Amino acid sequence: MKRSQRVGAFMEIISNSPNKIFALNYFCDLFGAAKSSISEDIAAAREIAAFTGLGMVETIPGASGGVRYVPFISKEKGLQFQDKLCRMLREESRVLGGGFLYTSDIMFDPVIVKEMAQIFARKFRQCGADYIVTIETKGIPLALKTAEFLNLPSVVVRREAKISEGATMSINYLSGSSERMQKMSISKRAALSGSRALIIDDFMRGGGSVKGISDILSEFDTQVVGIGVAIANIAPEKKKIADYIPLVYLGNVDEESRTVEVFPNSQIF
Amino acid sequence: MKRSQRVGAFMEIISNSPNKIFALNYFCDLFGAAKSSISEDIAAAREIAAFTGLGMVETIPGASGGVRYVPFISKEKGLQFQDKLCRMLREESRVLGGGFLYTSDIMFDPVIVKEMAQIFARKFRQCGADYIVTIETKGIPLALKTAEFLNLPSVVVRREAKISEGATMSINYLSGSSERMQKMSISKRAALSGSRALIIDDFMRGGGSVKGISDILSEFDTQVVGIGVAIANIAPEKKKIADYIPLVYLGNVDEESRTVEVFPNSQIF
Repeated sequence: MKRSQRVGAFMEIISNSPNKIFALNYFCDLFGAAKSSISEDIAAAREIAAFTGLGMVETIPGASGGVRYVPFISKEKGLQFQDKLCRMLREESRVLGGGFLYTSDIMFDPVIVKEMAQIFARKFRQCGADYIVTIETKGIPLALKTAEFLNLPSVVVRREAKISEGATMSINYLSGSSERMQKMSISKRAALSGSRALIIDDFMRGGGSVKGISDILSEFDTQVVGIGVAIANIAPEKKKIADYIPLVYLGNVDEESRTVEVFPNSQIF
Repeated sequence: MKRSQRVGAFMEIISNSPNKIFALNYFCDLFGAAKSSISEDIAAAREIAAFTGLGMVETIPGASGGVRYVPFISKEKGLQFQDKLCRMLREESRVLGGGFLYTSDIMFDPVIVKEMAQIFARKFRQCGADYIVTIETKGIPLALKTAEFLNLPSVVVRREAKISEGATMSINYLSGSSERMQKMSISKRAALSGSRALIIDDFMRGGGSVKGISDILSEFDTQVVGIGVAIANIAPEKKKIADYIPLVYLGNVDEESRTVEVFPNSQIF
């Protein structure tokens, strides 16, 4: 194979499996090339990824080492995306009765979810999480895409225990917004004892849901090592949990004038 | 830029946005190269994608034309994956009381979901869908990943109408398995009138849910152009809908012996 073919195939393969470590021998065998050639290809791939700004090509030394593709978003592009997200959230047609905001189209749009997940993957890539946890429903795409980028499994906490979840652990908790008692359940088969979890969700008001997830995980000796939420409501100022990282902050949603106060969390970069 | 750098960057960029059409001028500007060079790069990229088996590089003629990357899975790899999925589903530990099967870990695993979605994207790429529809909860990752591959938006039907969905259309339907009355809701903001939908879900027994989705979509003059389910139960033989396409068929789940009858739908290729 020619250099250009090897480099092209290399980029396609590694970028298709983010954060998966490929042994160099894998490419030697696939391309029928010497290790020295593959090393040169990797050097070329590293430059290419820096040029496109879509990822980083990292080599890991040692016996279990190899090469991996880490999705990347620059601070500049991340800020641009946050601005775009804020503009979308300010659209008048999103304002619902009671100061609620319609966001389902955003949270279920694969292209937007991908950009949000890229920012979380950048932020949390060193957090040491073993898996990603969310609670149904609207945070699932964002949690799964972040999990894909970080090459981690994910667990979805359910509102109701389902037969198909097997034995579950449930807790009741107070919803931060309404101080209403709510319930959440996690399958005993899903929780990994003594591990570390990254919580990803679409929205946080009082932090009750995330606090609930954290509490239910602590029953399995699982430590929360990071919390990312797409949209954090500014009020109430005092949340039930600290150290959460939002993409954007949501202020007042005025039903009458249909104005939405929303601004980016530029501290995330 | 050198040929190898251009081809590598080209592969990284197009494979990062499946089914998105890029104008050739975009790459001329990005690489500072003539159209003839870009055309040669595209020819090289087409060969590379055929070699890796991960995608197809397609050129679209005309004014709105360009080049796009279509994710691909070969019949051989698809059958291998179906076998792997069947082996996983046969694991004794999945058998729950009442003949239910634990599948949440599979449906929330980004790597497995990606392979399932690849098969559906292959199957339904010509179906002309405008968007993908699923019902919460376990089918969401699969639906979203299929939507990402086909470059389509997605809509998630909810079990309960939520305040944050705005005005919703709801229907009551009979669950195929239990003949129990259930409810589903779709936001009026989400449904696209006069359009075509591909339904993707994780599991089908009697077909009640999918029939329900189809009924609720017909209220918006939306036509169902395809139905893909990860796992279809063999019983009952007579489903509430026809023309569904499963990845695997599930037969008897024996609680006592912990055996699971499951086999691939090789007709899908």
